[in-house]
Amino acid sequence: MSEEASWFTEAHLPSGSSIGFRVTRKLDEVRTPFQHIEVYETTDWGNLMVIDGCVMLTSRDNFLYHEMMSHPALYTHTAPKKVVIIGGGDCGTLREVLKHREVEGVVQCDIDEQVTRLAERHFPELCESNGDPRATLMFDDGVALMAGMAPESVDLVIVDSTDPVGPAEGLFGAKFYESCIRALRPGGILVQQSESPLAHLDLIRTMRSYMRGAGFAATRTLPFPQPCYPTGWWSCTLARKGVTSFEFRERGAETKQFPTRYYNAAIHRAALATPEFMRSALGD
Amino acid sequence: MSEEASWFTEAHLPSGSSIGFRVTRKLDEVRTPFQHIEVYETTDWGNLMVIDGCVMLTSRDNFLYHEMMSHPALYTHTAPKKVVIIGGGDCGTLREVLKHREVEGVVQCDIDEQVTRLAERHFPELCESNGDPRATLMFDDGVALMAGMAPESVDLVIVDSTDPVGPAEGLFGAKFYESCIRALRPGGILVQQSESPLAHLDLIRTMRSYMRGAGFAATRTLPFPQPCYPTGWWSCTLARKGVTSFEFRERGAETKQFPTRYYNAAIHRAALATPEFMRSALGD
Repeated sequence: MSEEASWFTEAHLPSGSSIGFRVTRKLDEVRTPFQHIEVYETTDWGNLMVIDGCVMLTSRDNFLYHEMMSHPALYTHTAPKKVVIIGGGDCGTLREVLKHREVEGVVQCDIDEQVTRLAERHFPELCESNGDPRATLMFDDGVALMAGMAPESVDLVIVDSTDPVGPAEGLFGAKFYESCIRALRPGGILVQQSESPLAHLDLIRTMRSYMRGAGFAATRTLPFPQPCYPTGWWSCTLARKGVTSFEFRERGAETKQFPTRYYNAAIHRAALATPEFMRSALGD
Repeated sequence: MSEEASWFTEAHLPSGSSIGFRVTRKLDEVRTPFQHIEVYETTDWGNLMVIDGCVMLTSRDNFLYHEMMSHPALYTHTAPKKVVIIGGGDCGTLREVLKHREVEGVVQCDIDEQVTRLAERHFPELCESNGDPRATLMFDDGVALMAGMAPESVDLVIVDSTDPVGPAEGLFGAKFYESCIRALRPGGILVQQSESPLAHLDLIRTMRSYMRGAGFAATRTLPFPQPCYPTGWWSCTLARKGVTSFEFRERGAETKQFPTRYYNAAIHRAALATPEFMRSALGD
Protein backbone atom coordinates (compact mmCIF):
# COMPACT_ATOMS: atom_id res chain seq x y z
CA MET A 1 0.00 0.00 0.00
CA SER A 2 1.47 3.33 -1.02
CA GLU A 3 1.73 6.40 1.21
CA GLU A 4 -1.10 7.95 -0.77
CA ALA A 5 -4.50 7.23 0.72
CA SER A 6 -6.15 4.07 -0.55
CA TRP A 7 -9.21 2.10 0.60
CA PHE A 8 -9.87 -1.03 2.58
CA THR A 9 -13.27 -2.34 1.51
CA GLU A 10 -15.23 -5.26 2.89
CA ALA A 11 -17.63 -6.63 0.31
CA HIS A 12 -20.39 -8.43 2.20
CA LEU A 13 -21.84 -10.75 -0.43
CA PRO A 14 -24.79 -12.10 1.58
CA SER A 15 -26.24 -8.58 1.73
CA GLY A 16 -24.86 -7.37 -1.60
CA SER A 17 -23.33 -4.32 0.05
CA SER A 18 -19.90 -3.07 1.03
CA ILE A 19 -18.34 -0.70 3.53
CA GLY A 20 -14.90 0.82 3.11
CA PHE A 21 -12.47 3.04 4.94
CA ARG A 22 -9.81 5.31 3.55
CA VAL A 23 -6.49 3.96 4.78
CA THR A 24 -2.99 5.37 4.75
CA ARG A 25 -0.97 2.23 5.52
CA LYS A 26 -1.01 -1.28 6.90
CA LEU A 27 0.31 -1.24 10.45
CA ASP A 28 0.41 -4.94 11.21
CA GLU A 29 -0.50 -8.36 9.90
CA VAL A 30 -0.38 -11.84 11.43
CA ARG A 31 -1.57 -15.25 10.36
CA THR A 32 -2.53 -17.20 13.45
CA PRO A 33 -3.65 -20.86 13.67
CA PHE A 34 -7.20 -19.48 13.63
CA GLN A 35 -7.35 -16.51 11.32
CA HIS A 36 -5.66 -13.76 9.34
CA ILE A 37 -5.52 -10.47 11.27
CA GLU A 38 -4.62 -7.10 9.74
CA VAL A 39 -4.46 -3.62 11.23
CA TYR A 40 -4.61 -0.48 9.09
CA GLU A 41 -4.22 3.19 9.83
CA THR A 42 -7.14 5.18 8.38
CA THR A 43 -7.54 8.84 7.50
CA ASP A 44 -10.65 9.44 9.64
CA TRP A 45 -11.44 6.38 11.75
CA GLY A 46 -8.23 5.89 13.72
CA ASN A 47 -6.97 2.33 13.44
CA LEU A 48 -8.90 -0.46 11.78
CA MET A 49 -8.70 -4.18 12.65
CA VAL A 50 -9.70 -6.70 10.00
CA ILE A 51 -10.04 -10.47 10.54
CA ASP A 52 -10.25 -12.76 7.51
CA GLY A 53 -11.25 -9.77 5.38
CA CYS A 54 -14.06 -8.68 7.71
CA VAL A 55 -13.93 -5.35 9.54
CA MET A 56 -13.78 -5.99 13.30
CA LEU A 57 -13.47 -2.49 14.71
CA THR A 58 -12.21 1.03 14.23
CA SER A 59 -10.92 3.39 16.91
CA ARG A 60 -13.71 5.84 16.10
CA ASP A 61 -16.90 3.83 16.22
CA ASN A 62 -16.20 0.80 18.44
CA PHE A 63 -17.73 2.60 21.43
CA LEU A 64 -21.19 1.97 20.00
CA TYR A 65 -20.69 -1.80 19.91
CA HIS A 66 -18.76 -2.21 23.16
CA GLU A 67 -21.16 -0.09 25.19
CA MET A 68 -24.22 -1.87 23.81
CA MET A 69 -22.72 -5.33 24.34
CA SER A 70 -22.19 -4.59 28.03
CA HIS A 71 -24.26 -1.90 29.76
CA PRO A 72 -27.80 -2.97 28.78
CA ALA A 73 -27.15 -6.52 30.05
CA LEU A 74 -25.37 -5.31 33.20
CA TYR A 75 -28.17 -2.88 34.11
CA THR A 76 -30.81 -5.53 33.36
CA HIS A 77 -29.25 -7.93 35.87
CA THR A 78 -30.16 -7.00 39.44
CA ALA A 79 -26.67 -7.68 40.87
CA PRO A 80 -24.06 -8.80 38.32
CA LYS A 81 -20.98 -10.11 40.14
CA LYS A 82 -19.46 -12.82 37.97
CA VAL A 83 -19.14 -12.18 34.26
CA VAL A 84 -17.74 -14.33 31.45
CA ILE A 85 -16.85 -12.82 28.07
CA ILE A 86 -16.50 -15.29 25.21
CA GLY A 87 -14.45 -13.77 22.40
CA GLY A 88 -13.93 -10.07 22.97
CA GLY A 89 -10.18 -10.32 22.42
CA ASP A 90 -9.86 -6.61 21.62
CA CYS A 91 -10.76 -6.04 25.31
CA GLY A 92 -13.19 -3.19 24.62
CA THR A 93 -16.14 -5.04 26.13
CA LEU A 94 -14.01 -6.02 29.15
CA ARG A 95 -13.18 -2.37 29.74
CA GLU A 96 -16.89 -1.43 29.77
CA VAL A 97 -17.83 -4.32 32.08
CA LEU A 98 -15.16 -3.31 34.59
CA LYS A 99 -16.68 0.17 34.84
CA HIS A 100 -19.39 -1.47 36.98
CA ARG A 101 -18.11 -1.52 40.54
CA GLU A 102 -20.45 -4.31 41.64
CA VAL A 103 -18.72 -6.70 39.22
CA GLU A 104 -16.35 -8.85 41.26
CA GLY A 105 -14.74 -10.94 38.56
CA VAL A 106 -14.60 -11.21 34.77
CA VAL A 107 -13.16 -14.12 32.82
CA GLN A 108 -12.47 -13.26 29.20
CA CYS A 109 -11.86 -16.20 26.88
CA ASP A 110 -10.84 -15.53 23.29
CA ILE A 111 -9.57 -18.40 21.19
CA ASP A 112 -6.87 -16.26 19.60
CA GLU A 113 -4.26 -14.56 21.79
CA GLN A 114 -3.01 -12.53 18.83
CA VAL A 115 -6.22 -10.48 18.76
CA THR A 116 -5.39 -9.22 22.24
CA ARG A 117 -1.70 -8.68 21.46
CA LEU A 118 -2.59 -6.57 18.41
CA ALA A 119 -5.24 -4.65 20.39
CA GLU A 120 -2.66 -3.84 23.07
CA ARG A 121 -0.43 -2.41 20.36
CA HIS A 122 -2.94 -0.59 18.16
CA PHE A 123 -5.99 0.01 20.38
CA PRO A 124 -4.29 0.59 23.77
CA GLU A 125 -7.30 2.59 25.04
CA LEU A 126 -9.43 -0.58 24.85
CA CYS A 127 -6.88 -2.52 26.92
CA GLU A 128 -6.45 0.01 29.70
CA SER A 129 -8.35 -2.15 32.21
CA ASN A 130 -6.60 -5.44 31.36
CA GLY A 131 -4.53 -5.13 34.53
CA ASP A 132 -7.61 -4.76 36.76
CA PRO A 133 -7.32 -7.39 39.53
CA ARG A 134 -10.91 -8.47 38.80
CA ALA A 135 -9.99 -9.48 35.21
CA THR A 136 -8.72 -12.88 34.07
CA LEU A 137 -7.65 -13.24 30.45
CA MET A 138 -7.70 -16.74 28.94
CA PHE A 139 -6.93 -17.83 25.41
CA ASP A 140 -8.92 -20.96 24.79
CA ASP A 141 -12.02 -22.43 23.18
CA GLY A 142 -15.11 -20.67 24.56
CA VAL A 143 -17.40 -23.59 23.79
CA ALA A 144 -15.23 -25.91 25.93
CA LEU A 145 -14.92 -23.29 28.68
CA MET A 146 -18.68 -22.95 29.04
CA ALA A 147 -19.21 -26.72 28.84
CA GLY A 148 -16.87 -27.14 31.80
CA MET A 149 -18.14 -24.21 33.88
CA ALA A 150 -19.54 -25.01 37.35
CA PRO A 151 -23.36 -24.93 37.36
CA GLU A 152 -24.97 -21.73 38.63
CA SER A 153 -21.65 -19.94 39.03
CA VAL A 154 -22.03 -17.00 36.65
CA ASP A 155 -24.38 -13.97 36.42
CA LEU A 156 -23.69 -12.81 32.91
CA VAL A 157 -22.25 -14.40 29.77
CA ILE A 158 -21.32 -11.99 26.99
CA VAL A 159 -20.67 -13.55 23.58
CA ASP A 160 -18.61 -10.97 21.71
CA SER A 161 -17.59 -13.06 18.74
CA THR A 162 -16.96 -12.86 15.02
CA ASP A 163 -19.64 -13.93 12.53
CA PRO A 164 -21.16 -17.41 12.83
CA VAL A 165 -18.73 -18.94 10.36
CA GLY A 166 -15.24 -20.26 11.10
CA PRO A 167 -14.00 -20.24 14.71
CA ALA A 168 -17.20 -18.68 16.09
CA GLU A 169 -19.70 -21.10 14.53
CA GLY A 170 -20.14 -23.18 17.69
CA LEU A 171 -21.10 -20.08 19.66
CA PHE A 172 -24.40 -19.90 17.76
CA GLY A 173 -25.44 -23.51 18.40
CA ALA A 174 -27.99 -25.16 20.70
CA LYS A 175 -25.34 -27.08 22.70
CA PHE A 176 -23.50 -23.88 23.58
CA TYR A 177 -26.68 -22.24 24.85
CA GLU A 178 -27.34 -25.30 27.02
CA SER A 179 -23.89 -24.90 28.57
CA CYS A 180 -24.58 -21.22 29.16
CA ILE A 181 -27.91 -21.66 30.89
CA ARG A 182 -26.46 -24.37 33.13
CA ALA A 183 -23.57 -22.08 34.13
CA LEU A 184 -25.86 -19.13 34.87
CA ARG A 185 -27.38 -18.49 38.28
CA PRO A 186 -31.14 -17.86 38.41
CA GLY A 187 -31.85 -14.44 36.93
CA GLY A 188 -28.67 -14.73 34.89
CA ILE A 189 -28.34 -13.26 31.42
CA LEU A 190 -26.73 -14.34 28.17
CA VAL A 191 -26.07 -11.52 25.71
CA GLN A 192 -24.71 -12.17 22.24
CA GLN A 193 -23.90 -10.04 19.22
CA SER A 194 -26.62 -10.93 16.72
CA GLU A 195 -25.60 -9.28 13.44
CA SER A 196 -27.72 -6.87 11.35
CA PRO A 197 -31.47 -6.54 11.95
CA LEU A 198 -31.85 -5.73 8.27
CA ALA A 199 -29.63 -8.44 6.76
CA HIS A 200 -29.68 -11.30 9.28
CA LEU A 201 -33.23 -11.65 10.63
CA ASP A 202 -33.17 -15.37 9.90
CA LEU A 203 -30.07 -15.79 12.04
CA ILE A 204 -31.64 -13.77 14.86
CA ARG A 205 -34.78 -15.89 14.68
CA THR A 206 -32.75 -19.11 14.81
CA MET A 207 -30.57 -17.92 17.70
CA ARG A 208 -33.61 -16.95 19.73
CA SER A 209 -35.30 -20.24 19.00
CA TYR A 210 -32.20 -22.17 20.19
CA MET A 211 -31.99 -19.96 23.29
CA ARG A 212 -35.58 -20.67 24.24
CA GLY A 213 -35.05 -24.34 23.38
CA ALA A 214 -32.15 -24.41 25.85
CA GLY A 215 -34.50 -23.17 28.56
CA PHE A 216 -34.09 -19.39 28.59
CA ALA A 217 -37.35 -17.78 29.73
CA ALA A 218 -37.31 -14.83 27.33
CA THR A 219 -35.21 -13.20 24.61
CA ARG A 220 -35.01 -9.65 23.35
CA THR A 221 -33.03 -8.13 20.46
CA LEU A 222 -31.67 -4.59 20.86
CA PRO A 223 -30.62 -2.77 17.67
CA PHE A 224 -27.91 -0.11 17.60
CA PRO A 225 -25.93 1.82 14.99
CA GLN A 226 -22.54 0.41 14.02
CA PRO A 227 -21.09 2.12 10.92
CA CYS A 228 -18.26 -0.38 10.34
CA TYR A 229 -20.47 -3.49 10.09
CA PRO A 230 -22.58 -4.57 7.10
CA THR A 231 -25.66 -2.31 6.68
CA GLY A 232 -24.28 0.02 9.42
CA TRP A 233 -26.88 -1.33 11.83
CA TRP A 234 -26.23 -4.10 14.32
CA SER A 235 -27.84 -5.80 17.31
CA CYS A 236 -27.32 -7.77 20.47
CA THR A 237 -29.74 -10.38 21.74
CA LEU A 238 -30.38 -10.90 25.46
CA ALA A 239 -31.68 -14.16 26.94
CA ARG A 240 -32.76 -14.39 30.58
CA LYS A 241 -32.77 -17.41 32.87
CA GLY A 242 -35.96 -17.68 34.92
CA VAL A 243 -37.11 -14.09 34.34
CA THR A 244 -39.24 -12.89 31.45
CA SER A 245 -38.92 -9.12 31.93
CA PHE A 246 -36.32 -6.87 30.35
CA GLU A 247 -36.95 -4.03 32.77
CA PHE A 248 -33.64 -2.61 33.91
CA ARG A 249 -32.18 -0.64 36.81
CA GLU A 250 -33.13 2.72 35.32
CA ARG A 251 -32.13 4.69 38.39
CA GLY A 252 -28.72 3.02 38.35
CA ALA A 253 -28.25 3.80 34.67
CA GLU A 254 -29.38 7.40 35.19
CA THR A 255 -26.84 7.94 37.97
CA LYS A 256 -23.99 5.88 36.53
CA GLN A 257 -20.62 6.91 37.93
CA PHE A 258 -18.60 6.39 34.74
CA PRO A 259 -18.42 8.02 31.32
CA THR A 260 -19.96 6.55 28.18
CA ARG A 261 -20.27 7.99 24.69
CA TYR A 262 -23.45 6.33 23.39
CA TYR A 263 -25.15 4.55 26.29
CA ASN A 264 -27.35 6.26 28.83
CA ALA A 265 -30.65 5.34 30.50
CA ALA A 266 -32.70 6.92 27.70
CA ILE A 267 -30.71 5.08 25.04
CA HIS A 268 -31.24 1.82 26.95
CA ARG A 269 -35.03 2.38 26.98
CA ALA A 270 -34.81 3.33 23.30
CA ALA A 271 -32.96 0.13 22.40
CA LEU A 272 -35.89 -1.86 23.83
CA ALA A 273 -38.20 -0.37 21.19
CA THR A 274 -38.70 -2.80 18.34
CA PRO A 275 -39.10 -1.56 14.75
CA GLU A 276 -42.32 -2.61 13.07
CA PHE A 277 -40.68 -5.09 10.65
CA MET A 278 -38.86 -6.82 13.53
CA ARG A 279 -42.09 -7.09 15.51
CA SER A 280 -43.69 -8.86 12.56
CA ALA A 281 -40.71 -11.15 12.01
CA LEU A 282 -39.83 -11.93 15.64
CA GLY A 283 -43.10 -11.46 17.48
CA ASP A 284 -41.64 -9.00 20.01
CA MET B 1 -21.47 -2.57 -17.07
CA SER B 2 -21.44 -6.27 -17.92
CA GLU B 3 -24.16 -8.75 -17.02
CA GLU B 4 -21.88 -10.07 -14.31
CA ALA B 5 -22.44 -8.35 -10.97
CA SER B 6 -20.27 -5.32 -10.32
CA TRP B 7 -20.37 -2.62 -7.64
CA PHE B 8 -21.56 0.94 -7.34
CA THR B 9 -19.56 2.57 -4.56
CA GLU B 10 -19.93 6.04 -3.09
CA ALA B 11 -16.69 7.21 -1.53
CA HIS B 12 -17.57 9.86 1.04
CA LEU B 13 -14.32 11.76 1.46
CA PRO B 14 -15.37 14.04 4.35
CA SER B 15 -15.85 10.96 6.54
CA GLY B 16 -13.17 8.81 4.90
CA SER B 17 -15.63 5.97 4.40
CA SER B 18 -17.53 4.36 1.56
CA ILE B 19 -20.70 2.38 1.03
CA GLY B 20 -21.31 0.21 -2.01
CA PHE B 21 -24.00 -1.96 -3.54
CA ARG B 22 -23.65 -4.92 -5.83
CA VAL B 23 -25.30 -3.97 -9.10
CA THR B 24 -26.29 -5.95 -12.16
CA ARG B 25 -26.90 -3.13 -14.66
CA LYS B 26 -27.57 0.54 -15.17
CA LEU B 27 -31.27 1.06 -15.80
CA ASP B 28 -31.35 4.75 -16.58
CA GLU B 29 -29.25 7.91 -16.69
CA VAL B 30 -30.14 11.55 -17.31
CA ARG B 31 -28.23 14.81 -17.11
CA THR B 32 -30.65 17.53 -16.09
CA PRO B 33 -29.94 21.27 -15.76
CA PHE B 34 -29.39 20.59 -12.06
CA GLN B 35 -27.67 17.25 -11.67
CA HIS B 36 -26.64 13.87 -13.01
CA ILE B 37 -29.11 11.13 -12.09
CA GLU B 38 -28.45 7.40 -12.49
CA VAL B 39 -30.56 4.37 -11.61
CA TYR B 40 -29.03 0.91 -11.14
CA GLU B 41 -30.49 -2.51 -10.58
CA THR B 42 -28.84 -4.20 -7.58
CA THR B 43 -28.56 -7.84 -6.54
CA ASP B 44 -30.05 -7.39 -3.06
CA TRP B 45 -31.37 -3.83 -2.62
CA GLY B 46 -33.86 -3.52 -5.47
CA ASN B 47 -33.22 -0.38 -7.51
CA LEU B 48 -30.68 2.27 -6.55
CA MET B 49 -30.90 5.98 -7.42
CA VAL B 50 -27.68 7.99 -7.49
CA ILE B 51 -27.44 11.79 -7.89
CA ASP B 52 -24.07 13.35 -8.72
CA GLY B 53 -22.36 10.18 -7.48
CA CYS B 54 -24.20 10.15 -4.12
CA VAL B 55 -26.58 7.35 -3.19
CA MET B 56 -30.09 8.78 -2.81
CA LEU B 57 -32.15 5.69 -2.11
CA THR B 58 -32.60 1.98 -2.62
CA SER B 59 -35.88 0.08 -2.86
CA ARG B 60 -34.94 -1.95 0.21
CA ASP B 61 -34.00 0.59 2.84
CA ASN B 62 -35.75 3.86 1.90
CA PHE B 63 -38.61 3.05 4.27
CA LEU B 64 -36.38 3.98 7.21
CA TYR B 65 -35.71 7.47 5.88
CA HIS B 66 -39.17 8.24 4.51
CA GLU B 67 -40.99 7.09 7.63
CA MET B 68 -38.69 9.05 9.93
CA MET B 69 -38.89 12.20 7.81
CA SER B 70 -42.69 12.23 8.11
CA HIS B 71 -44.39 10.39 10.99
CA PRO B 72 -42.48 11.85 13.98
CA ALA B 73 -43.20 15.41 12.79
CA LEU B 74 -46.84 14.62 11.89
CA TYR B 75 -47.53 13.01 15.27
CA THR B 76 -45.77 15.85 17.08
CA HIS B 77 -48.08 18.42 15.50
CA THR B 78 -51.49 18.50 17.18
CA ALA B 79 -53.48 18.84 13.92
CA PRO B 80 -51.38 18.88 10.74
CA LYS B 81 -53.55 19.97 7.82
CA LYS B 82 -51.32 21.82 5.37
CA VAL B 83 -47.94 20.32 4.56
CA VAL B 84 -45.15 21.50 2.27
CA ILE B 85 -42.38 19.13 1.16
CA ILE B 86 -39.26 20.82 -0.22
CA GLY B 87 -37.28 18.37 -2.32
CA GLY B 88 -38.62 14.85 -1.92
CA GLY B 89 -38.85 14.29 -5.66
CA ASP B 90 -38.81 10.51 -5.29
CA CYS B 91 -42.26 10.95 -3.66
CA GLY B 92 -41.60 8.49 -0.82
CA THR B 93 -42.08 11.14 1.88
CA LEU B 94 -45.24 12.36 0.14
CA ARG B 95 -46.65 8.85 0.25
CA GLU B 96 -46.05 8.62 4.02
CA VAL B 97 -47.55 12.07 4.69
CA LEU B 98 -50.71 11.18 2.79
CA LYS B 99 -51.26 8.17 5.05
CA HIS B 100 -52.43 10.71 7.67
CA ARG B 101 -56.13 11.30 7.05
CA GLU B 102 -56.15 14.66 8.86
CA VAL B 103 -53.77 16.08 6.23
CA GLU B 104 -55.86 18.16 3.84
CA GLY B 105 -53.23 19.30 1.37
CA VAL B 106 -49.59 18.67 0.51
CA VAL B 107 -47.50 20.76 -1.85
CA GLN B 108 -44.31 19.03 -2.94
CA CYS B 109 -41.70 21.22 -4.58
CA ASP B 110 -38.59 19.60 -6.03
CA ILE B 111 -36.33 21.64 -8.25
CA ASP B 112 -35.77 18.76 -10.65
CA GLU B 113 -38.75 17.14 -12.38
CA GLN B 114 -36.55 14.33 -13.66
CA VAL B 115 -36.16 12.92 -10.14
CA THR B 116 -39.90 12.33 -10.05
CA ARG B 117 -40.04 10.99 -13.60
CA LEU B 118 -37.29 8.45 -12.80
CA ALA B 119 -38.98 7.53 -9.52
CA GLU B 120 -42.27 6.87 -11.33
CA ARG B 121 -40.39 4.51 -13.63
CA HIS B 122 -38.08 2.72 -11.19
CA PHE B 123 -39.66 3.20 -7.75
CA PRO B 124 -43.38 3.08 -8.66
CA GLU B 125 -44.33 2.00 -5.12
CA LEU B 126 -43.11 5.37 -3.80
CA CYS B 127 -45.29 7.22 -6.31
CA GLU B 128 -48.50 5.32 -5.68
CA SER B 129 -50.11 8.31 -3.91
CA ASN B 130 -49.07 10.95 -6.46
CA GLY B 131 -52.62 10.99 -7.85
CA ASP B 132 -54.16 11.68 -4.42
CA PRO B 133 -56.42 14.76 -4.80
CA ARG B 134 -54.73 16.29 -1.72
CA ALA B 135 -51.30 16.28 -3.44
CA THR B 136 -49.87 19.07 -5.62
CA LEU B 137 -46.56 18.42 -7.36
CA MET B 138 -44.47 21.44 -8.34
CA PHE B 139 -41.04 21.56 -9.93
CA ASP B 140 -39.46 24.77 -8.83
CA ASP B 141 -36.99 26.40 -6.44
CA GLY B 142 -37.97 25.57 -2.86
CA VAL B 143 -36.19 28.62 -1.44
CA ALA B 144 -38.28 30.92 -3.65
CA LEU B 145 -41.46 28.96 -2.90
CA MET B 146 -41.05 29.40 0.85
CA ALA B 147 -40.06 33.06 0.48
CA GLY B 148 -43.33 33.70 -1.33
CA MET B 149 -45.59 31.59 0.87
CA ALA B 150 -48.46 33.38 2.66
CA PRO B 151 -47.69 33.99 6.34
CA GLU B 152 -49.15 31.50 8.81
CA SER B 153 -50.56 29.26 6.09
CA VAL B 154 -48.73 25.98 6.70
CA ASP B 155 -48.57 23.47 9.58
CA LEU B 156 -45.54 21.44 8.57
CA VAL B 157 -42.56 22.02 6.29
CA ILE B 158 -40.52 18.92 5.45
CA VAL B 159 -37.11 19.54 3.90
CA ASP B 160 -36.23 16.28 2.17
CA SER B 161 -33.22 17.44 0.20
CA THR B 162 -29.83 16.31 -0.99
CA ASP B 163 -26.66 17.26 0.90
CA PRO B 164 -25.99 20.94 1.64
CA VAL B 165 -23.85 21.44 -1.46
CA GLY B 166 -25.09 22.23 -4.98
CA PRO B 167 -28.83 22.77 -5.55
CA ALA B 168 -29.74 22.18 -1.86
CA GLU B 169 -27.26 24.59 -0.29
CA GLY B 170 -29.83 27.39 0.22
CA LEU B 171 -32.07 25.01 2.19
CA PHE B 172 -29.57 25.00 5.07
CA GLY B 173 -29.29 28.79 5.37
CA ALA B 174 -30.66 31.36 7.84
CA LYS B 175 -32.80 33.15 5.23
CA PHE B 176 -34.63 29.95 4.31
CA TYR B 177 -35.45 29.24 7.95
CA GLU B 178 -36.84 32.77 8.29
CA SER B 179 -39.14 32.10 5.34
CA CYS B 180 -40.23 28.82 6.92
CA ILE B 181 -41.10 30.23 10.31
CA ARG B 182 -43.07 33.07 8.69
CA ALA B 183 -45.06 30.58 6.61
CA LEU B 184 -45.81 28.32 9.57
CA ARG B 185 -48.86 28.74 11.77
CA PRO B 186 -48.30 28.86 15.54
CA GLY B 187 -47.35 25.38 16.72
CA GLY B 188 -46.02 24.63 13.25
CA ILE B 189 -43.03 22.37 12.66
CA LEU B 190 -40.07 22.40 10.32
CA VAL B 191 -38.36 19.03 9.89
CA GLN B 192 -35.21 18.65 7.85
CA GLN B 193 -32.87 15.79 7.01
CA SER B 194 -29.73 16.58 8.99
CA GLU B 195 -27.09 14.10 7.81
CA SER B 196 -25.07 11.71 10.02
CA PRO B 197 -24.89 12.20 13.80
CA LEU B 198 -21.42 10.68 13.70
CA ALA B 199 -19.97 12.55 10.70
CA HIS B 200 -21.85 15.84 10.57
CA LEU B 201 -22.32 17.11 14.12
CA ASP B 202 -20.96 20.52 13.11
CA LEU B 203 -23.61 20.84 10.41
CA ILE B 204 -26.34 19.80 12.86
CA ARG B 205 -25.12 22.35 15.38
CA THR B 206 -25.09 25.12 12.74
CA MET B 207 -28.55 24.21 11.41
CA ARG B 208 -30.01 24.28 14.89
CA SER B 209 -28.36 27.58 15.66
CA TYR B 210 -29.81 29.13 12.46
CA MET B 211 -33.23 27.67 13.28
CA ARG B 212 -33.24 29.20 16.74
CA GLY B 213 -31.87 32.43 15.28
CA ALA B 214 -34.84 32.53 12.90
CA GLY B 215 -37.18 32.35 15.89
CA PHE B 216 -37.96 28.67 16.34
CA ALA B 217 -38.65 27.98 20.02
CA ALA B 218 -36.89 24.60 20.21
CA THR B 219 -35.04 22.06 18.11
CA ARG B 220 -34.51 18.33 18.48
CA THR B 221 -32.44 15.89 16.41
CA LEU B 222 -33.76 12.34 15.97
CA PRO B 223 -31.25 9.70 14.80
CA PHE B 224 -32.26 6.65 12.78
CA PRO B 225 -30.50 3.85 10.86
CA GLN B 226 -30.06 4.38 7.11
CA PRO B 227 -27.71 1.81 5.56
CA CYS B 228 -27.31 3.55 2.20
CA TYR B 229 -26.04 6.88 3.59
CA PRO B 230 -22.51 7.63 4.86
CA THR B 231 -21.86 5.92 8.24
CA GLY B 232 -25.20 4.07 7.91
CA TRP B 233 -26.71 6.35 10.53
CA TRP B 234 -28.75 9.43 9.72
CA SER B 235 -30.96 12.03 11.41
CA CYS B 236 -33.75 14.52 11.01
CA THR B 237 -33.96 17.74 12.99
CA LEU B 238 -37.30 19.18 14.12
CA ALA B 239 -37.85 22.87 14.92
CA ARG B 240 -41.08 24.09 16.53
CA LYS B 241 -42.72 27.49 16.25
CA GLY B 242 -43.94 28.79 19.60
CA VAL B 243 -43.80 25.43 21.39
CA THR B 244 -40.79 24.01 23.20
CA SER B 245 -42.00 20.44 23.82
CA PHE B 246 -41.45 17.47 21.55
CA GLU B 247 -44.16 15.41 23.21
CA PHE B 248 -46.22 13.71 20.56
CA ARG B 249 -49.68 12.20 20.08
CA GLU B 250 -48.64 8.81 21.47
CA ARG B 251 -52.17 7.41 21.49
CA GLY B 252 -52.55 8.40 17.84
CA ALA B 253 -49.27 6.74 16.92
CA GLU B 254 -50.18 3.61 18.89
CA THR B 255 -53.49 3.25 17.06
CA LYS B 256 -52.35 4.39 13.62
CA GLN B 257 -54.60 3.12 10.84
CA PHE B 258 -51.88 2.55 8.26
CA PRO B 259 -48.94 0.19 7.85
CA THR B 260 -45.33 1.18 8.45
CA ARG B 261 -42.17 -0.93 8.46
CA TYR B 262 -39.93 0.96 10.92
CA TYR B 263 -42.02 3.61 12.66
CA ASN B 264 -44.31 2.93 15.59
CA ALA B 265 -45.04 4.79 18.84
CA ALA B 266 -42.20 3.01 20.69
CA ILE B 267 -39.73 3.82 17.90
CA HIS B 268 -40.86 7.47 18.02
CA ARG B 269 -40.19 7.62 21.78
CA ALA B 270 -36.87 5.86 21.14
CA ALA B 271 -35.81 8.39 18.51
CA LEU B 272 -36.20 11.15 21.12
CA ALA B 273 -33.43 9.55 23.22
CA THR B 274 -30.16 11.34 22.67
CA PRO B 275 -26.85 9.44 22.71
CA GLU B 276 -24.34 10.66 25.27
CA PHE B 277 -21.91 12.20 22.75
CA MET B 278 -24.76 14.15 21.10
CA ARG B 279 -25.93 15.44 24.50
CA SER B 280 -22.44 16.78 25.11
CA ALA B 281 -22.14 18.31 21.66
CA LEU B 282 -25.66 19.71 21.27
CA GLY B 283 -26.80 20.27 24.84
CA ASP B 284 -29.99 18.18 24.42
